[in-house]
Formats: sequence, C-alpha cells, structure tokens
Amino acid sequence: MTQPTYDILGIGNAIVDVVSQADDAFLSRHDMHKGAMILIDTPAADALYAAMPAGNESSGGSAANTCAVAAGLGSRVAYIGKVADDQLGGVFRHDIESVGVHFPTAPLTGGAPTARCLILVTPDGQRTMNTFLGACVTLGEDDVDPALVAASAVTYLEGYLFDPPAAQAAFRKAAAAAHAAGRRVALSLSDAFCVNRHRTAFLDLVANHVDILFANETEITALYECNTFAEAAEAARKDVALAALTRSEAGSLILQGNETVHIQAEPAKVVDTTGAGDAYAAGFLSGLTAGKTLSQCGRMGSIAAAEIIGRFGARPATDLRKLMRD
Amino acid sequence: MTQPTYDILGIGNAIVDVVSQADDAFLSRHDMHKGAMILIDTPAADALYAAMPAGNESSGGSAANTCAVAAGLGSRVAYIGKVADDQLGGVFRHDIESVGVHFPTAPLTGGAPTARCLILVTPDGQRTMNTFLGACVTLGEDDVDPALVAASAVTYLEGYLFDPPAAQAAFRKAAAAAHAAGRRVALSLSDAFCVNRHRTAFLDLVANHVDILFANETEITALYECNTFAEAAEAARKDVALAALTRSEAGSLILQGNETVHIQAEPAKVVDTTGAGDAYAAGFLSGLTAGKTLSQCGRMGSIAAAEIIGRFGARPATDLRKLMRD
Repeated sequence: MTQPTYDILGIGNAIVDVVSQADDAFLSRHDMHKGAMILIDTPAADALYAAMPAGNESSGGSAANTCAVAAGLGSRVAYIGKVADDQLGGVFRHDIESVGVHFPTAPLTGGAPTARCLILVTPDGQRTMNTFLGACVTLGEDDVDPALVAASAVTYLEGYLFDPPAAQAAFRKAAAAAHAAGRRVALSLSDAFCVNRHRTAFLDLVANHVDILFANETEITALYECNTFAEAAEAARKDVALAALTRSEAGSLILQGNETVHIQAEPAKVVDTTGAGDAYAAGFLSGLTAGKTLSQCGRMGSIAAAEIIGRFGARPATDLRKLMRD
Repeated sequence: MTQPTYDILGIGNAIVDVVSQADDAFLSRHDMHKGAMILIDTPAADALYAAMPAGNESSGGSAANTCAVAAGLGSRVAYIGKVADDQLGGVFRHDIESVGVHFPTAPLTGGAPTARCLILVTPDGQRTMNTFLGACVTLGEDDVDPALVAASAVTYLEGYLFDPPAAQAAFRKAAAAAHAAGRRVALSLSDAFCVNRHRTAFLDLVANHVDILFANETEITALYECNTFAEAAEAARKDVALAALTRSEAGSLILQGNETVHIQAEPAKVVDTTGAGDAYAAGFLSGLTAGKTLSQCGRMGSIAAAEIIGRFGARPATDLRKLMRD
C-alpha cells in the first residue's frame, strides 16, 4: 500500500454559518428544539433570518470544520462539498483553502445558492441550528474522485450528508473506494434528529462500511434505540472497529475491541458549543493518522473541543499546535 | 420647528467587513500602513483576499456602525448607504434593520457588488483596512431624501464618503436640507489619509456646513496641518460650533465655544479597535439628542467605545443600555 497523500478527506455539506445570539424565548417563539439541527426551505430561511438578531457570518459545515481544525493541527487534509458560484461560496472556499485544505469540488453554477445555517446561540452556550441546504443538495457520486479517496488515510463522512438526496450514493462510493485502497472510513452521526430520520441507512452503513464511529451520547442511544449510554456503547463496540463517544463535560469513551479508554473533558468556559464535536473528531483523527495511542488521540480531541467551546464560532482562532505541546 | 422623527440619520459607505487576524509581518509584506484605511480595486481585493487568513464576515461601514450602536442605545435612527442586490447586501440590510435602523436606500442592481472591507487585526488590537467600494460608488444625490433629512435631529456624515465620486454632492445636498429644516449636521473625519486626499473639500465643509465635528488626534492635526494636537484643537474650536476630539487611551476633548470638557477614557482590554471611533460618535450623539450635558455625552461615547474595543468586530454584542445605567 502506498503512503497516503492526505491524512484526512472530509466529505460533507459545505455551509456558511450565520451566528446570532438569542434568548430561550426566541427559540420557543420559533418552535426550535434547543441543541438540534433542523432543515428549512427557502421561505422558512427568509422568515427566520428576518426575525433573527444581527449576526456574524463564517464558514461552517460539520466535516469542513473538522477539516479546518485538523489542518490547523498539522494534518494533510482534503475536503469534498458543494458550494454555489456566489459570494458566500467564495467565502467558504477562501476560508477552507486558507488553512491549507485541498478543496477540488467544482461550485454549482446557475442553481441554488450556497447553503446557510442560521445558528442561534443561547446564553448557556448551546447552539440551535436551522439549515437551508441550497447547493448542497446537488452533491453526488460524480463529486467523489476515487483516486482522492484512495490517496487519503481516512475518509471522514458527516451524518448530516444523509439529508440531501444524492449524497448517500456519494457516501457509499467513497466508502467502497476507501476500502478497495486499504484505507479507513470514519463517520460522525452528527445529530440525534438526523439519526432518527435515517436510522436504517445509518445502521447498515455503520455495521458494514464504517471503521471509526464518532457520536455523542444522544446520537449513539438514538442509533441503537437504547435506554442507557452503557448499552449503546456496547452495541457500538460490537458494530465498529473503533468508536469515540463524547459526553460533553463527562469526557469521552473510546472503544476498540475489548479495549476501553476513558478521556476526561478539558476544562473549558462554555461560550458557544458550535463545532465542539467537529473539533473533537479533528483532534482524534489528527492523532490517529499520526500514529498516536488511543489515549493521546482522545486527549487531542478534548483539547481541540475545549478551544472551540471557549469562543464564538466553529473554527479556531489560535494556533492549535501550541495547545497540544504540553 | 416640528419634533424630529429620527434622532440620527447616518450617511455613509455601506460595507461588509471581512475580519482576519494577522501579524505585523503580513502587513509589511503587503505594504500596509497599520491603522489606516486604503481603497483597493477589484484585482487588488481578489489578490489580498486570497492571501488573507480565514475570516469572519459582519456588517460594517463607519456611519452604519454608528447607527447600529446608537439604535442599541435607544436612539431613533435612519441610514442612507448603497449596497448591491446580492448576498452580502442582504446581510448588510438584515443586520442594520434588525437593530431597528430605518434603511430606505434602494440596492444597486446589475452593477458592482456590495462593498467589502478586508480588515487585518494585529495582536496589538489595531486594525488595518482595505476597502473595495463596489456599489458604494453609485451613491449620489438621488439617494438623499430631503424629507428624511428634515425629519432627523442630526444628519451624520462619514468622511470616507468623500472617496466615491458622486457622494460629495449627496453630502452637500444633505447638509443644505438639514439646515433648511433647522437641524444639525455632524461629520466624522474618519481617517487621516482620507483627510489628506480631500483636505480642501473637508476644510470648506467643516467651516461652512458642519455643526458637530468628530475626529481623532491624527485626523484633526492632518486637517489643519498642525504640529500639535493643542493647535489643531484650537483651530477646530474656531471652525465649528461643537467638536469632539478623541485621543485613544488619553480620552477625549469636547470643545464648544469657550467651553472645554475633558473626558477620561473608560478602561478597556484592547482586542480590536475596529469601530471605536464610530461607537464614540454613537454614544455622544445619542446623549446629545437626548438632551444630556456635554460631559455626559462624552462619557457615553467613551463607554460605547470601550465596549467595542473589548471584542472582535465593530458592532455591540451586549445590551449597551445596561452599560449606561450606572
């Protein structure tokens, strides 16, 4: 097997975040479930945006955030995702390329605009997300270059990508290409509501095509329809070669065959949890592809997540490598 | 004279900021003068953006920032400025309207895109600005509704508006309409380089059409070509009815006829000075139009500026009214 050109290839919804601060009453008025991501159409996006406070725009997208953080940690990273040929698409491309991520996907022309996620951050630091998928719905098999997948040590898929119709085929093509080349496939479940929307497809993918699974407590219990985290964790242990399960301030649990590693959460002042899971996956995969132990990988995930939680936005503003040195 | 419908009407370049953190070496490599604003054309904007680190986008524009802060302080505010009918224009409109500012200016269709200011914030908190004026160059006399000017207690003009060619006529039309209705005209000099580009026009405007002048130390010494701040301040005292001159951590000096008021700067941790002068003008004018004393107006300016300096971006994230209560 040849040496990979990239450590991580992320595939996901290419989204620009619009982040506003709001109170719980705003969420109630708009029937939002705090902490969740829902999909909204153009009229709903227009109506919600009109009602939202003034915001800040920055590049987002779950797997794209992971790619940006991993690149910041020194990993060699590529990304596949669909923006439109518009101003926000240009912003997305600039931001991911400026951190050194290879982004070969051609933009959509003459169709829907670049996706936007309208994010309300409440005073407790939780984020509630409303995504207008825009150009993302056109991401399909043709956007997955098997040679790029084969050249990447880990292909990382975000669960949110199960929502746009053509992306599941892209998922499966990428997983097949990765395994044919002797590479690994990682998946993040992304969101419990997303898991509920696509449970059968997720269960098949996890059992048959995924080597490394990332999920938080609510996502993993939703996937296996378990009452307790412990039961869900054991189900994951049987299902995938390696699972990294995050539990907010309770840290994370890493399962690999009979091995179990507990990782403590890093102390963090919670400002905005947007991107915490994405950053954890980035730290973990950055460590894994650099040959670190599972314990080291988990700690790198925790440190990266703590850094993201302590500021607004889902991408780092500081040199993450410095944080990892101690 | 009828009661005004608006306390403040701002007229300025409607701009979306792209804020990145950079070091001094980046400024040197790109021949930038730290703390200044320069105008760049499309190729230069594209080249600089490609070289810039990942950024955050948010609505900016000097007078627009002032309007947003003043609205946050409870003033009744309107704004005139030119965006394009594009994504960033939509962001600008959303953000200024969401804080309650009346924004009647029709967007430009089929022309240049919405203006962008590429801002590099260095570790010392200073910002260096590179503005692509885009749609702003089309702002002209037709965009100034004399009835709106007549309905506003103070019409506030930003000096940056001297750069686009048609705006000086808009300036003069607004000043004439304000005075015809017995209202006041305020001007911010904006930037020493801008003053140098347009000194003759500024001197005429200040002496003959401006009632309230805002400037910082470098701007006021540039305007009157003085060697010392004290000389420039005395020149301003003779030239305008009311001048508020800011000196960063040395506070501000307010001059009205023979009266001189010294205002101490509020203690602030300097994170990003973008918008500090805009916020000072907002606090000052918000106080003035509410009938406060000059000392109270200056203090409100200082508090608003300190709040903006302590965070990234030029618009407030907290309830400014709470800060003013003590």
